[in-house]
Amino acid sequence: MSEKYVYLFSEGNGKMRELLGGKGANLAEMTILGLPVPQGFTVTTEACAKYYENGKSISKNIENEIYESLKKLEEKTNKKFGNAKNPLLLSVRSGARESMPGMMDTILNLGLNDEVTEGLAHLTQNPRFAYDSYRRFIQMFSDVVMELPKSEFERIIDDVKKERGISLDTELNVDDMKDLVYRFKSFYKKSLNEDFPSEPRKQLLEAIKAVFRSWDNPRANVYRRMNDIPYSWGTAVNVQEMVFGNTGIKSGTGVAFTRDPATGEHRLFGEYLINAQGEDVVAGIRTPQNIDNLKDSMPDVYEKFAKIASKLENHYLDMQDMEFTIENGKLYMLQTRNGKRTANAALKIAVDLVEEGKISKDEALLRVDPKQLDSLLHPQFNPNALSKAKPIGKGLAASPGAACGKVVFSAQDAKEWHDKGEKVILTRLETSPEDIEGMAVAEGILTVRGGMTSHAAVVARGMGTCCVSGCTEIKINESEKYFTLGGKTVYEGDYISLNGSTGEIYAEQIQTSEATISGYFDTFMQWADSTRKLKVRTNADTPADAQQAIKFGAEGIGLCRTEHMFFDENRIKAIREMIVVETAEERKRALDKILPFQQSDFEEMYKVLEGRPMTIRFLDPPLHEFLPTKKKDIAEIAQSLNISTQHLENIIKDLHEFNPMMGHRGCRLAVSYPEIAIMQTTAVISAAINVNREYPEYKIEPEIMIPLVGDVNELKFIKGIVCSTADNLIKDSGLDMKYTIGTMIEIPRAALTADEIAKEADFFSFGTNDLTQMTFGFSRDDAGKFLNSYYEKKIYEFDPFEKLDQNGVGKLIEMASKLGKESNANLKIGICGEHGGDPSSVEFCHRTGLDYVSCSPFRVPIARLAAAQAAIKSK
Amino acid sequence: MSEKYVYLFSEGNGKMRELLGGKGANLAEMTILGLPVPQGFTVTTEACAKYYENGKSISKNIENEIYESLKKLEEKTNKKFGNAKNPLLLSVRSGARESMPGMMDTILNLGLNDEVTEGLAHLTQNPRFAYDSYRRFIQMFSDVVMELPKSEFERIIDDVKKERGISLDTELNVDDMKDLVYRFKSFYKKSLNEDFPSEPRKQLLEAIKAVFRSWDNPRANVYRRMNDIPYSWGTAVNVQEMVFGNTGIKSGTGVAFTRDPATGEHRLFGEYLINAQGEDVVAGIRTPQNIDNLKDSMPDVYEKFAKIASKLENHYLDMQDMEFTIENGKLYMLQTRNGKRTANAALKIAVDLVEEGKISKDEALLRVDPKQLDSLLHPQFNPNALSKAKPIGKGLAASPGAACGKVVFSAQDAKEWHDKGEKVILTRLETSPEDIEGMAVAEGILTVRGGMTSHAAVVARGMGTCCVSGCTEIKINESEKYFTLGGKTVYEGDYISLNGSTGEIYAEQIQTSEATISGYFDTFMQWADSTRKLKVRTNADTPADAQQAIKFGAEGIGLCRTEHMFFDENRIKAIREMIVVETAEERKRALDKILPFQQSDFEEMYKVLEGRPMTIRFLDPPLHEFLPTKKKDIAEIAQSLNISTQHLENIIKDLHEFNPMMGHRGCRLAVSYPEIAIMQTTAVISAAINVNREYPEYKIEPEIMIPLVGDVNELKFIKGIVCSTADNLIKDSGLDMKYTIGTMIEIPRAALTADEIAKEADFFSFGTNDLTQMTFGFSRDDAGKFLNSYYEKKIYEFDPFEKLDQNGVGKLIEMASKLGKESNANLKIGICGEHGGDPSSVEFCHRTGLDYVSCSPFRVPIARLAAAQAAIKSK
Repeated sequence: MSEKYVYLFSEGNGKMRELLGGKGANLAEMTILGLPVPQGFTVTTEACAKYYENGKSISKNIENEIYESLKKLEEKTNKKFGNAKNPLLLSVRSGARESMPGMMDTILNLGLNDEVTEGLAHLTQNPRFAYDSYRRFIQMFSDVVMELPKSEFERIIDDVKKERGISLDTELNVDDMKDLVYRFKSFYKKSLNEDFPSEPRKQLLEAIKAVFRSWDNPRANVYRRMNDIPYSWGTAVNVQEMVFGNTGIKSGTGVAFTRDPATGEHRLFGEYLINAQGEDVVAGIRTPQNIDNLKDSMPDVYEKFAKIASKLENHYLDMQDMEFTIENGKLYMLQTRNGKRTANAALKIAVDLVEEGKISKDEALLRVDPKQLDSLLHPQFNPNALSKAKPIGKGLAASPGAACGKVVFSAQDAKEWHDKGEKVILTRLETSPEDIEGMAVAEGILTVRGGMTSHAAVVARGMGTCCVSGCTEIKINESEKYFTLGGKTVYEGDYISLNGSTGEIYAEQIQTSEATISGYFDTFMQWADSTRKLKVRTNADTPADAQQAIKFGAEGIGLCRTEHMFFDENRIKAIREMIVVETAEERKRALDKILPFQQSDFEEMYKVLEGRPMTIRFLDPPLHEFLPTKKKDIAEIAQSLNISTQHLENIIKDLHEFNPMMGHRGCRLAVSYPEIAIMQTTAVISAAINVNREYPEYKIEPEIMIPLVGDVNELKFIKGIVCSTADNLIKDSGLDMKYTIGTMIEIPRAALTADEIAKEADFFSFGTNDLTQMTFGFSRDDAGKFLNSYYEKKIYEFDPFEKLDQNGVGKLIEMASKLGKESNANLKIGICGEHGGDPSSVEFCHRTGLDYVSCSPFRVPIARLAAAQAAIKSK
Repeated sequence: MSEKYVYLFSEGNGKMRELLGGKGANLAEMTILGLPVPQGFTVTTEACAKYYENGKSISKNIENEIYESLKKLEEKTNKKFGNAKNPLLLSVRSGARESMPGMMDTILNLGLNDEVTEGLAHLTQNPRFAYDSYRRFIQMFSDVVMELPKSEFERIIDDVKKERGISLDTELNVDDMKDLVYRFKSFYKKSLNEDFPSEPRKQLLEAIKAVFRSWDNPRANVYRRMNDIPYSWGTAVNVQEMVFGNTGIKSGTGVAFTRDPATGEHRLFGEYLINAQGEDVVAGIRTPQNIDNLKDSMPDVYEKFAKIASKLENHYLDMQDMEFTIENGKLYMLQTRNGKRTANAALKIAVDLVEEGKISKDEALLRVDPKQLDSLLHPQFNPNALSKAKPIGKGLAASPGAACGKVVFSAQDAKEWHDKGEKVILTRLETSPEDIEGMAVAEGILTVRGGMTSHAAVVARGMGTCCVSGCTEIKINESEKYFTLGGKTVYEGDYISLNGSTGEIYAEQIQTSEATISGYFDTFMQWADSTRKLKVRTNADTPADAQQAIKFGAEGIGLCRTEHMFFDENRIKAIREMIVVETAEERKRALDKILPFQQSDFEEMYKVLEGRPMTIRFLDPPLHEFLPTKKKDIAEIAQSLNISTQHLENIIKDLHEFNPMMGHRGCRLAVSYPEIAIMQTTAVISAAINVNREYPEYKIEPEIMIPLVGDVNELKFIKGIVCSTADNLIKDSGLDMKYTIGTMIEIPRAALTADEIAKEADFFSFGTNDLTQMTFGFSRDDAGKFLNSYYEKKIYEFDPFEKLDQNGVGKLIEMASKLGKESNANLKIGICGEHGGDPSSVEFCHRTGLDYVSCSPFRVPIARLAAAQAAIKSK
């Protein structure tokens, strides 16, 4: 760490984001550019780290540095902090490396006290302005620094207005302002048992500490987790000379963008308020004017501003979001930054900037956050409708998009209501594979239990359906068909709305608008495709999913889970028969019934894929997942299988496992029951043969993937079975068909012994869901019980099931990739866990030298862009 | 691989065990020593590997090599194989690197057919001998090579004897022998639909193939798994010229040892039979004579044999187990090997050989198999009683020793019956911590479910109680108090006997004898202690266990599990209260009730340890383990806690986890409920302060171990709590006490990020039970369902919960040790899983540079010896 903790704006530059934060760096850069920036200084992010290291206190040497910079600022401005005759007033704002809405608001007018205010009144000959500024300062300081409730101050203002019989703030006169100052200070003293601080230096230090503190508030922590911002970064603090937009009608304040942030259109876009301070714009009490009006009211200011805007955009080569203040006709720039924009705008701006010759395609590709593409692919709430709605609770943002519909409590109801033309939201304690049909017709899915990789979440993402999972505060009564949340009881048929991108749940109807993809999307994604090195496949189990994914640019299927095909009513009976019989022959007989279904499934998939590759994973889940749990179902099945209920119950009891995630599943099933592998091989190969006969141009080469391998001998054993079955079928067909056999790497031991396994495998696919579970030693289904506690205590900063844990799980992946390629140079390596669609994880996969990522269909565009960005970054 | 697959005895030597097997190498060595060995050749272990590679067939070139060696043997012996005038007859025997009783028996007299037998009769002028040899050959070949049932041949002999009205084999005359040959051959043809092979070369090849095949039979596979013999070794085959002990009264055959294998006494010990072939001694039909009698009957043979015996012992410098044959007064040595011996004999022989100046102490230490020490520490069956008993079934050999007692079916019954003076065997579906008192008083424990590391197994080993676990064939009815196994129903109060070293279960009373430790034990173990580098600690939770372990040489406690202290009737109520309350304060109140119990437990432990170190692990299991499962118990507890039964049931339901092994447990509990860590720290530190005050010379330095850490931040967080609590207590006490804080490494991620964790840890202790589970991705409770299938298919050769998986889990341990020591040079590293008492795992720990191993008390001597052997091997 350097020894310097405070920088004057004139000492920094735009590249010093890490140290000065985004706001501080840009203020320094604008100073270099010679723009009219009120001067000031930045207390660095390293000072923030020191603050926390020192038990939340500012060390003497940093305090002194602040005072020295303050002194220099006084010299620059020719004003004195705390001096009534010629007062320097300050604004104090937070400013992290990335802009973070979760953090502290601004404090304006700092440095005022009774004496200075009186001096300011005298100096400006505008006592109302002076006392208005003072009461605003007390209000902001009390709220932001001392955390006194904002509403109390609003109430006091209302009291005064009522007493005076007026309704608008602007109607308050100077005496009213003085009265407010008096009442605010009394309330402050009553609440905190101390006087409002009149010493400006104390005001300043407290404000700086408040900014540092705000880095650690719950909102900021949640925002960071959602946006992958490390806690260790810290925030800087910007202390800047006040300029006043509230000195009269030649003054004002505003916010503007160099392009339209909603559409991307290239025109100055923004709004401003005459005779106001910054927070008035934000508060929305007065309606601001369109920036175009400024052209008429203050043409020279407008012209000057437009020039600056253009200069800034050309300097930063990106759309700018700027704050400005006009003080008595003089324009000041308070801030500039790359502006937030909608996904559509982001694409248009990126493409336009390239076409304007301002940036390269690579730069353009880096400008769009891959996660933002999500909003293009899913319905969204109508923004107006949403602004009036109020959530009753929040779950996990399990599958993005917005949904609105009538609540139903069972998959069957979902189907029936849907058939009658209703839009439904399926609400369940948790979903299971049996619910699949109901899930397919629902607008959205809401579950009480289950994390980001629960059944509901995974399936919903696959279908592109909005899903909020794991809202444990819901008390649900599925049999009586109602739930309560946030004090509200919701009955079957009531409207609710879900925001799958935030996890918010509303007990009301909110209009949604359909997903729309612009022409810019295609141009942009083509650039991404020609840049990326990683191939992008999809996880899809049905022809519909596969079709959707291909539309989104998937180059094949990286994971086709065969077990999801087993829950159809016609099939589940045969599956159950297979499980409960006691000899290999009986099992074979049951499997023979399943074979035609599996085979025709694969044939359909191969046809949809038109020659694109498909990795088919053999049966994976513990068998008891397929068994019935209800008395009635058990009796029915026992009868159809011609065994006693008691006997079936015993079989189910025998299949019970203490830790099914670590039990008899994956390749362990094929080791115990090789008949299953034989049946599945037959289905895959026969399907490929049939489709290849019909469409020889597809040149299908089946890829068979054995799950849950932990020892090369498991793979060897099953490979023996698969090969002898496949070779016979191919020989009989007379075709010249190749196929490959690979394995999931999802058990730590597989990664550790990847050199041995690679000798028997044509490809590896990292199953990062299970690999994360085993590496961390916790199950995704149970981790919900303690993960919140982990976030609160900052033990984890992100959910390792969402974002790949590069430190631990990543180490295994690197090790396995290296060991694997060393012992088998032809080994293909991919990833097919949920992480395949997470940008930072995709970047990791690129760096690690993987060949492809595979993710759910709706994440394919994200993965394509993330892969392109990774390729550019590693250039 | 070399290109030579067959070695004449004269071409090999004693060091070629890997290639020639133990028997073959020793035959070659005896040839070099000039001893009277019938000559022959050895088909190598590499030929065995080739046999399996070639789809179980002997390649042409190996077949030719065999014939070439046969030709040289004919030259050497001046006899011809298959020639009636001067026949060369052969014996064929298996011979692996380590002697393996699970494999093939010997085939004698190979090379006989009708013609050769007639020639032999003529040549020896002893037709009865010739036909006796012939019928023996047919019998052995049919049994061993063709797997026809032995009993059928016995039945045919009985038929002939009955028809002839005689009762002894020796009464059969030459015609009877011819009759037997005829009947045997008819039976052979009837059973196999082919003639008995009269072509000697075919006989030879079939016999060799049978030996190769026997390497893969189920008995051999089980034996290998029990004795850590890799499947890849293969077996050699020894083909040797026949000499005949059955040519008359100047002939005979016998087995002798250079020392008494039961006691170790230094004297020639053995027995022989006049006019007999090898299998007669083994079969036990005739009673052999003591070897001393040979001194009188054939003094010159005896003298010659005694000289050879002495020469062999001095050559091999170990007690020899020798087979010999006397043919017409001439002595032949058929085999010599280091003899099997009892544990007591092993110790005496090792110590004696050192005192005789024949071997060094290091050599002596390598002579005793550490696992053998077990039998010295536990009761054993009386050998005579055992030889008459017949097991009704077999489970897992979960805790060694022998036990006999009356069956009871609940822990409470065990206690009541024991109080009435009965010896009991506690038989349960599975045990749980609530059974602990019943387990403590039982002679032995038998469970239907659970593996080698199930609750029953772990606790029994800790107490040194015999235990057979996981006998899934038992059908148990605990409520009606009976079980059935092997067709027998055993009721409460019936006697059963258990062999915890083999897993065998007997439905009868078998006398046991107490464990006895000889003076040699102490001498020997002192040598071990002064040789080993690894320290040996014990896993103990009670003062009694600790005392026992110290008696066995433990240098401290490596793992004291605090949760086992929670099941006492007085405490469990407070524990349950702690779990079901809903605020931190209520939880603290419940914990305050537990504190005095924990503290006084630790005080007692510290007193027993007298200054030896103790690592105390904080609460580890999922909380729901402490909750009641029975309706009645739940109601009772709800009442005592003053909450409704419904409410308690809901709490229990909420605590349910899908995969408890990967759930809310270990340090995750302390993260959620820091109050628990505070209470436990207070108990540990206060106990240490109190005992240190009373016995300042103990200089106690508490070692606190945080379980299940997967991320350094978990450790940091809990360490903060522990340190602030401990530092305050120590400061208040005025003592100058140090303490250390470390962590279990039992989550793969902890091993992968050990460099980070080591910065916060004073010590690591590898929890290899959990680490094995997570690395393999299967739970020890569930693995039983498929592990047998894995052994059968040779996917696994051993149980990774018994013997450390050095390839996978070991890689993590090596990585963690290296990373840990690199980032913290003072880091102490140990292991406290079940593997701490397994010799091959101890050797691995030594090689990896660990500081100590910790194991259950009764395994401490094993670990001490294994550690010494590891140190010697790495010299």
